[in-house]
Amino acid sequence: MTTVSILGAGAWGIGLALTSERAQNDTTLWSYFEPEIQEIKSNGENSAVLPGIKIPKSIHLTSDLKKAAKSNILLFVTPAQAFRKVLRALKPHLNPESYLIICSKGIELETNRLLSEVMEEEAPDFSACVLAGPNFAREVALNLPAAATLASDYRDQSLWLCNSLSHDRFHLNPSTDVKGVELASAVKNVLAIASGLVTGAGLGENARAAVVTYGLNELTQLSLQKGGHINTVLGFSGIGDILLTCMSATSRNMKLGLDLGSGKAIEQLKKEGSPLTEGAMTVKALIQMAQPLGQRMPVCQAVYRVLYEGSTIEKELRNLFSHPLEVSI
Amino acid sequence: MTTVSILGAGAWGIGLALTSERAQNDTTLWSYFEPEIQEIKSNGENSAVLPGIKIPKSIHLTSDLKKAAKSNILLFVTPAQAFRKVLRALKPHLNPESYLIICSKGIELETNRLLSEVMEEEAPDFSACVLAGPNFAREVALNLPAAATLASDYRDQSLWLCNSLSHDRFHLNPSTDVKGVELASAVKNVLAIASGLVTGAGLGENARAAVVTYGLNELTQLSLQKGGHINTVLGFSGIGDILLTCMSATSRNMKLGLDLGSGKAIEQLKKEGSPLTEGAMTVKALIQMAQPLGQRMPVCQAVYRVLYEGSTIEKELRNLFSHPLEVSI
Repeated sequence: MTTVSILGAGAWGIGLALTSERAQNDTTLWSYFEPEIQEIKSNGENSAVLPGIKIPKSIHLTSDLKKAAKSNILLFVTPAQAFRKVLRALKPHLNPESYLIICSKGIELETNRLLSEVMEEEAPDFSACVLAGPNFAREVALNLPAAATLASDYRDQSLWLCNSLSHDRFHLNPSTDVKGVELASAVKNVLAIASGLVTGAGLGENARAAVVTYGLNELTQLSLQKGGHINTVLGFSGIGDILLTCMSATSRNMKLGLDLGSGKAIEQLKKEGSPLTEGAMTVKALIQMAQPLGQRMPVCQAVYRVLYEGSTIEKELRNLFSHPLEVSI
Repeated sequence: MTTVSILGAGAWGIGLALTSERAQNDTTLWSYFEPEIQEIKSNGENSAVLPGIKIPKSIHLTSDLKKAAKSNILLFVTPAQAFRKVLRALKPHLNPESYLIICSKGIELETNRLLSEVMEEEAPDFSACVLAGPNFAREVALNLPAAATLASDYRDQSLWLCNSLSHDRFHLNPSTDVKGVELASAVKNVLAIASGLVTGAGLGENARAAVVTYGLNELTQLSLQKGGHINTVLGFSGIGDILLTCMSATSRNMKLGLDLGSGKAIEQLKKEGSPLTEGAMTVKALIQMAQPLGQRMPVCQAVYRVLYEGSTIEKELRNLFSHPLEVSI
């Protein structure tokens, strides 16, 4: 029996633990926070993040990283900014044959590095795998059907992992484009802000679809420049996740865009206690990443100027419309 | 001054007439139905399709095809099944230097031909251009920002036409992929039904995004087989239009899917007076088009089986999930 550890007991960690269990794996859920483990042990759920979702007793619970380290497959669902720290703590206890799969989304802000690049630095003996797709955690936890991409540098590894973690309501699609999957996940948070900005400003659904299309094009260009593959853009972790995140009602990034687009100032939002979202932070990293490659990032730059330089989405949209799509003719 | 005729005074015809006028063209709006022209003349609007949208006096109105034929640019916005008839009636009056742009969406059902192929047959001296994108007619009529693709076989022609019809709130992106643009427009109506089916059956947003992603992949494959280009899939008439049609609330195709997905039988819908939508008809044509090319069309086939063979979307989704994406690895 394959053993699987999920590192992080937030909403997505719980969703992944439940789906791993359904795929007949011996599953362990780890949290850094012992009280979180205690709550799940006593109430059978993590009511702060997924109220009403019961976690069966067959899933092992622990806050001991050494125990979690022993599994065949480890899924990292910690916050992106905690990834390096957890990996360092874990490393001495790892089995060299284990597979490490990054399910966290985002860029390490201090270094502008993708999490697979952080893993290359911290654990160069392991080859980073990545899992991403259009997956609201609650729906996966409820066993509603969902699909995602699982990428590894090695085709056979990817196929074996897909096979181990899939079941009839959770389809994993194999890929060998680790960086492409990670980039798409980072960019889509920025596009969700852009989508919210357009909607918040009352510019309509045509304009929103147009802006997301511009954004998809710059993601494609950046991804190709970084060695990614067009199929990733067309897959679950590319357009699939963008469909979900940019067109559905309520991601935190979308909400930030909606608030700013409808005229609230960012200072006001901070006063009201809304923290800056992942997308608001990664937008800088993406622009910096694209610069040495000579890659224009017009939607990222538009979002950046609205967030940090007092521009408006109306003005930025006129600017976008003055250029054709990068891939146009 | 460039002269532009819009053939068809439905919602999208009016939207295009207004945007052509805003782009400083001398614009004529033609309708086959003289009473429709009379209503616009006396009330300043076509209240049946776009109530409250005023059509300025500067737009010429006519039901005389000979008058409409004289313009530099002709935009066809007639129903797809009337396209051949209108083109035949128009042909003797055409200026050989005029540009003919297909803005109708769909396939001629009797022949399984794309409208550009109908034009090749009926008016071989003209090279068909196509305009398509994420464009709700009412939003364009209201001058909210929108973008679309305009394709011609000839790059210079495409650029000139984009320039003639664009303005600061209506961006046309040049393309040389006429067939790719047409195919995307036809497929997206089927994907909208699929999207509605998943939602109507209560399968959630993850499943919807997954199914649309599968659909986008088969569109890509079919399009490439027919000589289309990947950039078209990534552009306004591809993913842009799919974002709008498959994720927004209320297209007629989506509504059909919602009704069927929530358990209504197609016979009941017909009794209630709901006609089959464009997508419900083109799905057969698309499957037939793909067959000699050896191209699998799993989402089209799933929609076909639910519509015409009593299958359910739950069953079809299990079937989809048993295959990887065509473009996956």
